[in-house]
Amino acid sequence: METLQVIKIGGNVIDNEAHLSDFLKLFATLDGNKILVHGGGKLATHLAERLHVAVEMVEGRRVTNDDMIDIVTMTYGGLINKRIVAKLQALSQNALGMTGADLNLIKSAIRKSENGVHWGWVGDPLTVEHSILLDLLNKKVVPVIAPLTHDKKGNILNTNADTIAYKIAESLSKSFEVELNFTFDLRGVMKDIDDPGSLIEEIRRPEYEVYKSQKIISGGMVPKLENAFEAIAHGVKKVRIMHYEDILKIEKKEIGGYTSIY
Amino acid sequence: METLQVIKIGGNVIDNEAHLSDFLKLFATLDGNKILVHGGGKLATHLAERLHVAVEMVEGRRVTNDDMIDIVTMTYGGLINKRIVAKLQALSQNALGMTGADLNLIKSAIRKSENGVHWGWVGDPLTVEHSILLDLLNKKVVPVIAPLTHDKKGNILNTNADTIAYKIAESLSKSFEVELNFTFDLRGVMKDIDDPGSLIEEIRRPEYEVYKSQKIISGGMVPKLENAFEAIAHGVKKVRIMHYEDILKIEKKEIGGYTSIY
Repeated sequence: METLQVIKIGGNVIDNEAHLSDFLKLFATLDGNKILVHGGGKLATHLAERLHVAVEMVEGRRVTNDDMIDIVTMTYGGLINKRIVAKLQALSQNALGMTGADLNLIKSAIRKSENGVHWGWVGDPLTVEHSILLDLLNKKVVPVIAPLTHDKKGNILNTNADTIAYKIAESLSKSFEVELNFTFDLRGVMKDIDDPGSLIEEIRRPEYEVYKSQKIISGGMVPKLENAFEAIAHGVKKVRIMHYEDILKIEKKEIGGYTSIY
Repeated sequence: METLQVIKIGGNVIDNEAHLSDFLKLFATLDGNKILVHGGGKLATHLAERLHVAVEMVEGRRVTNDDMIDIVTMTYGGLINKRIVAKLQALSQNALGMTGADLNLIKSAIRKSENGVHWGWVGDPLTVEHSILLDLLNKKVVPVIAPLTHDKKGNILNTNADTIAYKIAESLSKSFEVELNFTFDLRGVMKDIDDPGSLIEEIRRPEYEVYKSQKIISGGMVPKLENAFEAIAHGVKKVRIMHYEDILKIEKKEIGGYTSIY
C-alpha cells in the first residue's frame, strides 16, 4: 500500500502569515499523498473581540453561539482556508479547500450540553466520506480541510481540527499506510513547556495516563493525545506530534526531536 | 448536447437568510447540470463598517486594500459560500464550494490602476479550468462558486460575480448548451426601477447602447449587460436577467416576466 501523510497544522503558526508561508513551503516539498488539516489559531478570537462578541472557552474548546459560528465560518472556512489554498497554488500544489459540508465530506452530530455547558454549534464527527478523498488523492489534488463540519440539516458546525485529522486518517487506513502528524510550534509533548530538554520522544497509553494524573500532561494536549491513541488503535500506522519546521523528518524517516505515539 | 444552467445569485437576497433559503429550495428542484455563482451582497460592507475599515466603491465596484481582501475572503469564501453549501447539502444537493484559487479554477490578472483609481486586490479572470467543472458535473456535483479568484502567486483577488458567471458559461459552451441566468431581487432590466410595468423583456445591443446613452440603463446593470452580450457573442445559448423567485421558468421554458438578452 502507498503511504498517506495526514498533516494537521495548528497553534500560533496559523496567525502569522510569514510562519504559515514557511510551513507551506516545507509542506509543498513533501512527495506523495498528503492531506492538510488546519486549525483556527487565534484569528477567530481576535475577530470576535473586534466585533464585541463574547468569547467563551471551556477546557480549551470554544462555545459556539449564533454569532460565533458565523465568525469561525468566516475565519476558518474563508480567511485561513483560502489563504492556504492560494499559497499552495503558488507553490504548484493543486490544493482544494474544503469544509466537512463540501461534498458532504464530514457529517457531525451536534454536541449535547454537558455539565451545564451549552456548546452551541459544535460538532462531533460521525462519518467521513473517504471515497471523496481517495478520488482527490488519485488526481494528485491536495485536500486542505478547515475545522468545520455540518449536520446535513443545513447547519455548519465548529469541529476540533485534531479530531478531524484523526477521523480522516482512520477513514483512509484501509486504503493507505496512514501516518498522522500533529504539527504546531512546539517540539512535541513536553514535561515542562519551558524546558526543551523535557521533550517526551515516545509515549504509550499507560505512561500517558500517569502523566495525565500527575497533571504533567494537561490542557489541549489531553484531547490531542486521546485522538492520537484512538488513531493507533484504529489502524493508523504512525502518529507524531512535532514542530512544523520538522516535517521533512517525516519523509527522511528521521526519528527523534519529536514525540512518537505508540 | 446536454443543457447546463449557470445561475448567478446576487443582490439583497444574499444578505437575508430566509430569502436565500427560499431561493435555494427552488434551485434544488432544477434538474440537470447546474452551477451556482454567488455574489457578496452587503455583508462585506457591513462587516467592514463594524471593523472600522473604510469602504470605497467606484462605479459599483469595490476598491480592495489589504484589510478589505481579508474581509471579502471571510464573507464571500467563508460565510456566504459555506452557508449555501450546507443548505444545499440539507436539500440533498451535493454541493462543493469553491473559489477560483481552489484547484486553480480561475486565474486572474490584478486589475491595474485606472483614472487614478487604485483597485488593490481586484482580479479580472484570464483562464477558467473548465475540465474541473466538467468532471464535477459528470459526478452530479453542484459547484458553488464564490466571487474570489487568485493570481497563482499566492494572492486571493476580489472578482466580480457576474464576470465569473459569464466566464464559466463561456468556458463550457463547447461542451453544453449553456444558459446563463443572472438572478436577483428585480424582475429584470427596468426602465424605471419603481415601475414594474417598465420591465424590458427583450434586449439587443443596439437598444442597450441607446438606453445607456440616455442613462435609462446605468450603474451595476451596465457591466451585467456587457457580460451578457459577451456571453451571447461567445457561444452561450441563452442569457436571462430575472428575479430569483422565477428560476423555475428556466426549466418550463417559460418566456416573459424577465429580460432575455439576444
